[in-house]
Amino acid sequence: MTKFMDVHHGMQGITAEQLQAAHKADLDIEKDENVHFERAWADPDAGVVYCLSEAPSADAVQRIHERAGHRADEIHPVPLSV
Amino acid sequence: MTKFMDVHHGMQGITAEQLQAAHKADLDIEKDENVHFERAWADPDAGVVYCLSEAPSADAVQRIHERAGHRADEIHPVPLSV
Repeated sequence: MTKFMDVHHGMQGITAEQLQAAHKADLDIEKDENVHFERAWADPDAGVVYCLSEAPSADAVQRIHERAGHRADEIHPVPLSV
Repeated sequence: MTKFMDVHHGMQGITAEQLQAAHKADLDIEKDENVHFERAWADPDAGVVYCLSEAPSADAVQRIHERAGHRADEIHPVPLSV
């Protein structure tokens, strides 16, 4: 299992409720791919959302995000953290 | 106080020790600007580092990063999080 940071662009105007709903949509199906979405942060003005997850692969992260309706634009493994 | 996610590019090959040292360099002086760097994550292959902080402004985050020797390429306020 590796930690991943994925990034979504084009999310201008996202609200707290929409971020919560998107995160819940991931959580509802994440076990199918053995992924766990830990946190997410949004900049509504720039339209950027960052998601931190633990997963077996970037493809597994993307499969959950796609099924939940929000494909990631970038997915970076982040094996180092402090 | 607002949460910020900042991004550093061009960090290919960063090691765990270098990430730890960079984070400590921020922590050592962050109080001068009333900033707190909470977490950082690195993708050594793509050379990307993400830092999560709480700060009075993006400029305050940048001033600490600059003095610590690693100017951020992007700094996003992330007022929404889950």
